[in-house]
Parts: sequence; structure tokens; C-alpha cells
Amino acid sequence: MPNSPIHTDVAIIGAGPVGLFAIFQCGMMKMSCQVIDALDEVGGQLSALYPEKPIYDIPGHPSILAGDLITQLESQAAPFNPVYHMGQQVTGMVQGANGRWTLSTSKGVVMDAGAVIIAAGVGAFGPNRPPLDGIEDFEGLGAGLGVNYLVKRREDYRDKKVVIAGGGDSAVDWAISLAELATSVQVVHRRPKFRAAPESVQRLEALVEQKRVELVVPYQLSGLQGSKDKLDAVVVTNLDGASRTLEADVLLPFFGLSQNIGPIAEWGLGLEHNHITVDPSTMNAGLPGVFGAGDIITYPGKLKLILMGFSEASQAAHHARDYVHPDEAYHFEHSTSIGAPGESA
Amino acid sequence: MPNSPIHTDVAIIGAGPVGLFAIFQCGMMKMSCQVIDALDEVGGQLSALYPEKPIYDIPGHPSILAGDLITQLESQAAPFNPVYHMGQQVTGMVQGANGRWTLSTSKGVVMDAGAVIIAAGVGAFGPNRPPLDGIEDFEGLGAGLGVNYLVKRREDYRDKKVVIAGGGDSAVDWAISLAELATSVQVVHRRPKFRAAPESVQRLEALVEQKRVELVVPYQLSGLQGSKDKLDAVVVTNLDGASRTLEADVLLPFFGLSQNIGPIAEWGLGLEHNHITVDPSTMNAGLPGVFGAGDIITYPGKLKLILMGFSEASQAAHHARDYVHPDEAYHFEHSTSIGAPGESA
Repeated sequence: MPNSPIHTDVAIIGAGPVGLFAIFQCGMMKMSCQVIDALDEVGGQLSALYPEKPIYDIPGHPSILAGDLITQLESQAAPFNPVYHMGQQVTGMVQGANGRWTLSTSKGVVMDAGAVIIAAGVGAFGPNRPPLDGIEDFEGLGAGLGVNYLVKRREDYRDKKVVIAGGGDSAVDWAISLAELATSVQVVHRRPKFRAAPESVQRLEALVEQKRVELVVPYQLSGLQGSKDKLDAVVVTNLDGASRTLEADVLLPFFGLSQNIGPIAEWGLGLEHNHITVDPSTMNAGLPGVFGAGDIITYPGKLKLILMGFSEASQAAHHARDYVHPDEAYHFEHSTSIGAPGESA
Repeated sequence: MPNSPIHTDVAIIGAGPVGLFAIFQCGMMKMSCQVIDALDEVGGQLSALYPEKPIYDIPGHPSILAGDLITQLESQAAPFNPVYHMGQQVTGMVQGANGRWTLSTSKGVVMDAGAVIIAAGVGAFGPNRPPLDGIEDFEGLGAGLGVNYLVKRREDYRDKKVVIAGGGDSAVDWAISLAELATSVQVVHRRPKFRAAPESVQRLEALVEQKRVELVVPYQLSGLQGSKDKLDAVVVTNLDGASRTLEADVLLPFFGLSQNIGPIAEWGLGLEHNHITVDPSTMNAGLPGVFGAGDIITYPGKLKLILMGFSEASQAAHHARDYVHPDEAYHFEHSTSIGAPGESA
């Protein structure tokens, strides 16, 4: 039996910084929001990829850690009681005769929304996975165990045998950083040369001389050994077919990110190089009641800055409101006059 | 002898929140800035009119006092060493054959700027002054003395004889607030009815019953008495020509604000109802190398939100850079990659 649809003013696709701020702006205009995101936690790339990196270009924050910015945006949205549907993608989006939209997700959630704001960033994104037989058995064993695609907390790698694969900045930077606390760090790369910041490569070479890091070059990953819930070793092969077996508690492959706007491409929106084209004066995405904001949209003059996404989210919310409540004139007020969000009006 | 011109990449007109953020964005693109503002301190209306009001719609700040936001923006701009020219207006702006602009100010400062960003908010603004003979003698005597057009610190009015003139929210709210600490509070209004929030009017009436505030209605201001550096009394007259002399240390006239974009109207920019029309894809204001951002500009879809001004400042800075350095391709980098402002690159 299908779930009965959740009724909402606005469905927001994407719970990154721009999606979170869209909740706030919709709330200030007295619209309720349901939010869908493919990741398990809010914050998009900022939470998933670089929560501990400082950001310097958020206006009014000379420096703020990416994770802290997300915490702030989440608190700013909280008084408006958004409902988050995490770990799922919107798989279907159909407009009814009444102009409202029915969205369904990969986890079977169905919602009936007055308007839709797409703030999906680069779309669903994830690491490029090396093509190794049975790799999925070693994914999801936890931080510091099996195959990990990102390091959230260095401490999880203390006293571990770490194999890093890749030749870019992430591989080099994490080799340097984890060498301080891991039992061993081996870096597998198919070429002897690394494409990373020269200063970092120098630091890596110094650690190699001190025998705190071993470079396994030119080699490629060819297999994994272990039991169902424990990785024992990583097998690597060179161009001559010679192979080595590297003892390992954890493999960190850093082969970049794949980005995929996924089902969004199938909803009849105007697309330009995987970006949704919007009308810059309204953020309308080419279908009635559907708006876009943030890195997923494009228009003349668009810059991919978080702060510009905030501005787009405001515009999208204003025009979503006109679409959801066409008969009510909106009396524009500044937040200083309205009072604190969540206070009775 | 004329001053020798100050050479700068960008002249920013207006040191409100948007002008301050424009300094930061120009700085991130390695452009130097000189900033001109009619007020004596940075922050525009936020510092001059409501420094202690909380703002709720700055992304990443669930609540921030207007004055604190300005402090944050000023620190964010500081690593780029902006030079502020306060208490003066730009009186002339002329383009040279080389495409650069020469700006001159009311205090005789002359600068040679590669580009100009106008972030002048509502333009020069100030209180509507009552037409009283010799009023200028009583202005500028200091907080709590003579004629004051705004209250920055309540404490300055302790044990003072205060006369408030006006019938709106400011007059009513300050009468209520200052009644707690002033020796006396008298409110002069030309009608018996006040146009303020009903709850505030009720509180005012309660204070009148308790004899902590006196309403002097229907009366109008007609003169000031005192010596050169001290106000002694305010003379008021009613429609019948009867007059009263109210002993006073300080007069607070609350007759609203006048706004004036001033000389900006004479520079050949496209104007629409006292706003500068810009190309929304570049923020270009219709003259080569001149850009706009914030409340002074208009374009289709423009909302008067501080956060939208920040976004416009980013666009203006990017296009100012293309104008100032047309031969250098700009390698767009996120702030997380560049490192902290002020660090050596």
C-alpha cells in the first residue's frame, strides 16, 4: 500500500548550506518545508568532505569551520520545524492539475508540495571507487577499518596499518598527517611522481627518508584480502605483472569524486553541462513552481560561492511564496522588525 | 595646491555592511581599496541607527546585533588594509582616457581608482531637522546635551530634563525608555494621537497617569533658549498661538529620516526612483568600470536584503577585477584552498 503523501508548502531537495538557508527563508515567509538529501547527515560537502576546514568568505564570519557553519545554519532553520528525509534521493517528481508537485523518494516517502526548491549542489556525489572484486565487503566497517574514502577524525587511524592509494593532494596530505600516529603508512601510486603542492611533496619525501612513510610506486591496486569483517592486506601489481601484498588494517583510496545530478536530469528542466538553467530574476527553473539555488544552477554572472547560494535561496523562497500563495500579497519586512524566529507573530 | 591623488585599485563609496564586504572580496582578488563614507564611523545605518538591534537573517548567524555584524565585517576586511575616508562625500567622479576614474571628496581627498564600487545604501541620510532659528548652535554639544537626533546610550540621559518631539514609534519608545532614568520627560506632538504600536501607546499612557511623562499636546516646537553651549529651554506653541516654555537639558526631535543619494545623481548613471540600475550579470552601473551593490541598486528580482548585497558585492568585485586587470585570467579558487586572508600566498 503506498504511503499517504506528506503535505508541505515547499519541498527542498538538498540539505547543504544553501538548502538549510532556504528552510530559514521559507520559514520567515511562513512556509513549511520537507527536505530530502542523499547523504545521511545535513551539510552536503561541508559535512561530508571537509568539516574541519576553515572557510573565510562567509560574510560576517572572518573564519568559520565548515562543520560549524552547518551547525549555525541548522540552528537558524530549526525554529521553523523542517522535516529531514536523509539517505534518500528524489526519484520522481510529477506536477498535478492543481499546480502542486508530487515527489517520491528512493525510500518510499511521498510528498505533496506547493513548490520545489532544488539546492542539490553538485548532485549526488561520492568517491570514485577502485574496481576491486569484493570491495563492498570492506566498505562500511567503520572509521580506520576496511576501506574508507575519507578521514573524518585522524585519531581513528592511531596504531593502524594504513595503505593510501592515489597521487594527488589528498593522498599526499593524509600520508603526511597520518604518519604521525599510524603504525605504518604506505602510499600506492601508479607513477613515481605526485601531483600535489610542491611543499607537501617535499614533506612527504622527507618522511620517506625517515622511513615513516613507504612509497609503493609504480604500482596499482589489484586486490583485497581478509575475512568478511576485517581487512588483512592490499595486493598491488606493477606494469611487469609483479605483485606485492601489503599488510593493512585500512585502505584509503583517494581517486577523486564522481558527481551525478542523477534523476534531476529526467524532470524536464533546462540543463546546461549538468547545471539547471534558471531565470536570474526569480530563480525559476523552467517549470511552474520549481526553483533552484546554489551550485547546481547556472545563469549569466553566476559564481559558485556559498554566499551567492544564500542570496539565490532568498530569491527562490520569495518566488516560491508567490507561487504557493498567489492571492496573498506579501508584506516585506526586515527581520529586525519581525522579531526572533519562532516567537509568536 | 591640490593634493596629489591616492592611487588605488578600487574606490568603494559607502562603508556600510555591503561596502565592507566588498573590501574583503576585492582583497581576496588582490585589489587594494580606498573607502569613502559620509558618516563618521563605518557600518552605515547599522551603526548609526540601530547598533543594538538583533538581526536574524544573516546566513550562519541565527541572531547577531547589528553593531556586532559590523565589527565582524570590519575584521574580515582588515587583513587587506583598506583606507577609510570618513565624514565626507564623493563630490566629483571623472573618467580619464586610460579608463581609470578620478574621485574627489568634500574634504579635498583626490583619488585615482582603477574601478569604482558604489555601495551607498540609501545614499547620504540624516534626520529631518526642525526649522528652528539657531538650532545648529545646539547640535553637536554631545550626547544628552542640546539637540540630539538619536539615542546611542540611554545612560547619557540619566538625571537630565528631556524634551522629546514627534508622534511616531521613536518618540513613544524613547519616552518610555528614558522615563526610567531622566529627571523629567515631556513629549511634544502637534496632535493628541500617536502613530505607534498600540502596546507602546498604552505603556506611554500608563506613564502619563503615573506623572512620569508629560504629554505636551497639541503643540509644536517654535524656539530654543540657552547660551552658546547649553540648552536651557524649548519653546512650544499651539494652534491658538499660546506658548509654553519647557525647561530642558536636551531636545530629541524624532521627525523621521531624509534620504538623499546626493551627487551620485549627477554622474551620468542610469537611475530609477533614486536607485542605480545595474546589469544583474555583472553589477555594472552603466559606465565602464563602475559597479554597484546593495540597497542603492536595482535590477529585475532585486530584494533589499543585506545578504543579497553581499552577493552583489562579490559579483561587483569579480567584474571590477576583470576591468582593472583585463590581461590576467583569474584563477577562481575557494577561500578554503587559498588559506587565511593576510597569509603570504
